[in-house]
Amino acid sequence: MWQLLQFPLCPFSRKVRLMLGEKGVGYELVRESPWLHRDEFIDLNPAGTTPVMVQGQLRLRDSWAICEYFEETIDRAPMIPGDAAARAEIRRLVAWFDEKFFREVVGPLMEERMLKRLVHRASPDAKILREAMKNANGHLDYIDWLIDHRRWLGGPVLSLADLAAAAHLSVADYLGGIDWRGHEQTKQWYAGLKSRPSFRPMLSERMEVITPPPHYDKVDFWE
Amino acid sequence: MWQLLQFPLCPFSRKVRLMLGEKGVGYELVRESPWLHRDEFIDLNPAGTTPVMVQGQLRLRDSWAICEYFEETIDRAPMIPGDAAARAEIRRLVAWFDEKFFREVVGPLMEERMLKRLVHRASPDAKILREAMKNANGHLDYIDWLIDHRRWLGGPVLSLADLAAAAHLSVADYLGGIDWRGHEQTKQWYAGLKSRPSFRPMLSERMEVITPPPHYDKVDFWE
Repeated sequence: MWQLLQFPLCPFSRKVRLMLGEKGVGYELVRESPWLHRDEFIDLNPAGTTPVMVQGQLRLRDSWAICEYFEETIDRAPMIPGDAAARAEIRRLVAWFDEKFFREVVGPLMEERMLKRLVHRASPDAKILREAMKNANGHLDYIDWLIDHRRWLGGPVLSLADLAAAAHLSVADYLGGIDWRGHEQTKQWYAGLKSRPSFRPMLSERMEVITPPPHYDKVDFWE
Repeated sequence: MWQLLQFPLCPFSRKVRLMLGEKGVGYELVRESPWLHRDEFIDLNPAGTTPVMVQGQLRLRDSWAICEYFEETIDRAPMIPGDAAARAEIRRLVAWFDEKFFREVVGPLMEERMLKRLVHRASPDAKILREAMKNANGHLDYIDWLIDHRRWLGGPVLSLADLAAAAHLSVADYLGGIDWRGHEQTKQWYAGLKSRPSFRPMLSERMEVITPPPHYDKVDFWE
């Protein structure tokens, strides 16, 4: 059985968990708080980041490497499907969410609303929060545009692009950083993902001391 | 013929160019300065980053997606070789250099010694430069350690891990951020990479107004 070291609001771990769920790979969750810099964790992953996956002597570090590993070893439910050009487009969007959306939206929200509360015992910076939420709105416009042109974000079928986007969006949403008004296309696409068996268990988990907004775990946002 | 949009000191473009060189893929260089935010470039890549590759209707964006594309389509000189676990280790190290080494060393050096000069017309911040060079030393220790345990960074053969590391190191070295003293293993490994036909053309290129240190393009560092 794989062990997956993570914390509930790690967007990169969520992306991996969605992929493992779609592929039907079992794993045991192990809580890791990377901001504590535990020696044993740094031994496992010198980069100091979650997720890390362990099975026997095998260690997988870095969410990109982990996703490609399971895409290569588990044929079920291909998440980087299609020809080389289609796969490049899916990977471009995964990088978009892992890098750009994380840097402009999720990272600042985690810093201001999670790490400042859990670690630094400081108040969030309202200006940084406003900027992150404004950036989020621009990203939702881009997702709206993608869904106007394609069935799923990366192309005609569900792919790692959708899982990466949903993973990051779900963390931003938990932290109150997403204003869904005026983004009906994205809302419907996200409702579809929320209702998948790979997603549902994550929505019931909570990060200590931080409460998500009421719509967070509702598939249709309001019930 | 592929077109590759980049600027001489883009480490992600250098990684892609090293890979194309090893695989024998021809391309034409097109100069792009992403900090100018040219509309036509944003149309090509909404993320606004180099490298971008174009051939006919096909556009490849994001250096990770580009490297995987050529690994999948060109059999010659596999750069992510081995079984799934070996490939995960190579990708972990690529992510190490693209994310951690870039964030802690190359990014700050580019900001202080390149963008401040070219764009902001400001002086570099000596404190940030010192911190980046101190970080670089820690990374060189890690590369020394890897080479003490393996033939190449990612395992027994040359891989994308070496190319990514060399790409980022070469930009940091150009910008005067690397003190090679006390890192003989890394120096020898890097000298070997510098002498490869895929690397040599890059070493002769110059970024406007910024001059590299004298050892920069010397394979053995002193001749």
